Amino acid sequence: MSNYPGIRLLMTGDELIHGDIIDTNYSYLATTLIENGLVVQEKCTVGDNLGTLVHQIRRLSEASDILLINGGLGPTQDDLTAEAMAQAFDIELEQIPEARCHVEAWCERRGFALSPASLKQATLPHGAKIFPSSPGSAAAFCIRANDCLVIATPGVPSELKHIVKEELLSHILDIFDCNKPEPLTKFTLLGIGESSLQSLIDQTPAIKDNLEIGFRAGLPTLELKYRTKTGVDPDHSKDAKQLLEQAVADHLIDDRPSTVAQVLLKTLQETNQQFCTAESCTGGMIASELTRLPGASAHFQGAIVSYSNNVKHQVLGVEESTLETHGAVSEPVAKQMLAGALQQTQAEIGVAVTGIAGPDGGSADKPVGTVWIAWGTEHAVKTVRLCVKFPRVQFQQLVSAISMELVRRELKQQENPPAWLARWS
Amino acid sequence: MSNYPGIRLLMTGDELIHGDIIDTNYSYLATTLIENGLVVQEKCTVGDNLGTLVHQIRRLSEASDILLINGGLGPTQDDLTAEAMAQAFDIELEQIPEARCHVEAWCERRGFALSPASLKQATLPHGAKIFPSSPGSAAAFCIRANDCLVIATPGVPSELKHIVKEELLSHILDIFDCNKPEPLTKFTLLGIGESSLQSLIDQTPAIKDNLEIGFRAGLPTLELKYRTKTGVDPDHSKDAKQLLEQAVADHLIDDRPSTVAQVLLKTLQETNQQFCTAESCTGGMIASELTRLPGASAHFQGAIVSYSNNVKHQVLGVEESTLETHGAVSEPVAKQMLAGALQQTQAEIGVAVTGIAGPDGGSADKPVGTVWIAWGTEHAVKTVRLCVKFPRVQFQQLVSAISMELVRRELKQQENPPAWLARWS
Repeated sequence: MSNYPGIRLLMTGDELIHGDIIDTNYSYLATTLIENGLVVQEKCTVGDNLGTLVHQIRRLSEASDILLINGGLGPTQDDLTAEAMAQAFDIELEQIPEARCHVEAWCERRGFALSPASLKQATLPHGAKIFPSSPGSAAAFCIRANDCLVIATPGVPSELKHIVKEELLSHILDIFDCNKPEPLTKFTLLGIGESSLQSLIDQTPAIKDNLEIGFRAGLPTLELKYRTKTGVDPDHSKDAKQLLEQAVADHLIDDRPSTVAQVLLKTLQETNQQFCTAESCTGGMIASELTRLPGASAHFQGAIVSYSNNVKHQVLGVEESTLETHGAVSEPVAKQMLAGALQQTQAEIGVAVTGIAGPDGGSADKPVGTVWIAWGTEHAVKTVRLCVKFPRVQFQQLVSAISMELVRRELKQQENPPAWLARWS
Repeated sequence: MSNYPGIRLLMTGDELIHGDIIDTNYSYLATTLIENGLVVQEKCTVGDNLGTLVHQIRRLSEASDILLINGGLGPTQDDLTAEAMAQAFDIELEQIPEARCHVEAWCERRGFALSPASLKQATLPHGAKIFPSSPGSAAAFCIRANDCLVIATPGVPSELKHIVKEELLSHILDIFDCNKPEPLTKFTLLGIGESSLQSLIDQTPAIKDNLEIGFRAGLPTLELKYRTKTGVDPDHSKDAKQLLEQAVADHLIDDRPSTVAQVLLKTLQETNQQFCTAESCTGGMIASELTRLPGASAHFQGAIVSYSNNVKHQVLGVEESTLETHGAVSEPVAKQMLAGALQQTQAEIGVAVTGIAGPDGGSADKPVGTVWIAWGTEHAVKTVRLCVKFPRVQFQQLVSAISMELVRRELKQQENPPAWLARWS
């Protein structure tokens, strides 16, 4: 990517430098730029202080082809980006007619009067060009200075995304005549961590030398992104991709960025099945993950969160003698929980989970992390015992994900359980 | 805070500059420093590139009293912090005996052999002092250069937190002889947003002029932090605090940073009550939030997620005629769901929720966002109808939080529902 322009980002705002909010705008900008072949060289974050802003704008613009500034475009006294740009490059601030029209139109749509505070947003450095697609009252704008294209963008995440998609990205790519690189292929993997995947890649030079590879950990899934490295022979790249895809095949749950719940819901839709859960140690997490998704109601009957033995017996019909003989965390209890949930909800397929999330409740025989999962239909039930030695919430997230994946594989008639699950047994 | 040293942070790592992970280490460091009276002047983020690192370490150390570097201490080739520090200040790299002991002890604890990769972590700039509390194989360390204390810390979040708590913070405070400022008072609020609270503060100069105030949005709660501004008369500060506390009293759910589920569980423990839920539109989110917490099992019997009318009738005993006459989103159905959940789980207090999370399913009479909540005991049930016009997941989060808060107020015998809830009715 060495032919591409040097790009630096300046993120502004007291709330950022104080650590009060986490900088998700940067993550959005950086990943969008990388997909288009542009790597950020430096990100600098400072608070709402005029002197500091002027200094950094000058420093960063001198080193870059593009300086992208985020935040500080609003109507209040703390919003200093336009003024700092003017001072940094020693140019005048003036009311820009296009920016004034933009603010006026915005006020009219909202039924607001045009206030001095609103008009401040139309006062920009001489020569500024605005991006008309800006959805907020503050228009994004750019100027050329120090041989650098300096772009000011709003801090509101939804406004930023809108402008980037509508105008900004193509503007940057046009100006710098970037060749759009090969699109990234993105896979969602389950049951493999970053470091294991990294070692696997490091051990296979054919993959490492020919592909540009990135990860994004989305506990409990891992997003794998890859494309051909610049200058690599297409045949070598093809072989490398095949090798990589074979290496992760068992972990692949979707050929795009997804959550485990999204993939399960899609499969329930494709196979037109009704699903239910009986959850003890996951405490309703599977139901909650699934019902976050629009459209879940058409394929999800319901869940029984049987946190107490009484609910296991009373609602799910688990026999008291089974609970006494085998304990709540046992294969027979998991099976009876599943049978009860299927009967009570009239769903066609379901999963039941009973385990010890910790930190207390373990024993020598059944340590913290032990869990029994039963899944299937009224007439075909499978079970597995796992030991997932993670802290409580991570335990719940991983067990929920594994449970959903076991159901998805069942619906897809794939080998079940997957080979990688042996790691947890 | 103008007497305090200039502190700058350098965050390193390709995964950070590529936007693949969100920088939570920074948020932790900045908020910890601010609590102790130290404001970060600048944060700079760069990838794993030796030349860039050397340049930034030199630049930032020249401008600062303290430069805190995060990341790049590991055993791989990408971990360049020690080498970059040596080059930046033109000092030799050498094996530091304390660092070697640290790595050896770490390997011994894990039963690993001492490899060249491990030993790389003991090769540090001449004069480096390590922080012995470092829990990982890589010890944090510091050197003095350019009149600046340059501190290198590990990127693994749990290791970073451990070192900061055990040694680093007190080390910084000791060296710079900072007077520890008044501790921040922290409140958890529900039912008020950042902008409403900001306007409230802006309209009350007595609060604004005398208190240093910060927020941290933790959807659906808001953390409010405040302390006396430097130099303010203690009497003025006392009055200002009283005014602020009165202004937010109705929203206050805890006098420390908490989640709504944590506050509910604490109240269930204090009152020794057993809780249950019957959830339709929240899909198990209340149960899941509560059961993420250790100790939930002693006060949570279970939940019935009645996503279909069949489960409402079959498991919760809602009458079919009630569902037909009033519809699933109605006061009588919410009440019968609660009665059914209390009976089935044998809990003493519970909450039932039925509503339209959207994006589909609304009507003129019951638009998307309509929800009925019923809460209480077998003999004393209260209900409320709300209209929460938020996107699906935010709707679920807010309705879950309100439901838990209504139960907490009931247990505490507080006025119920709170006045602010009128905003949603």
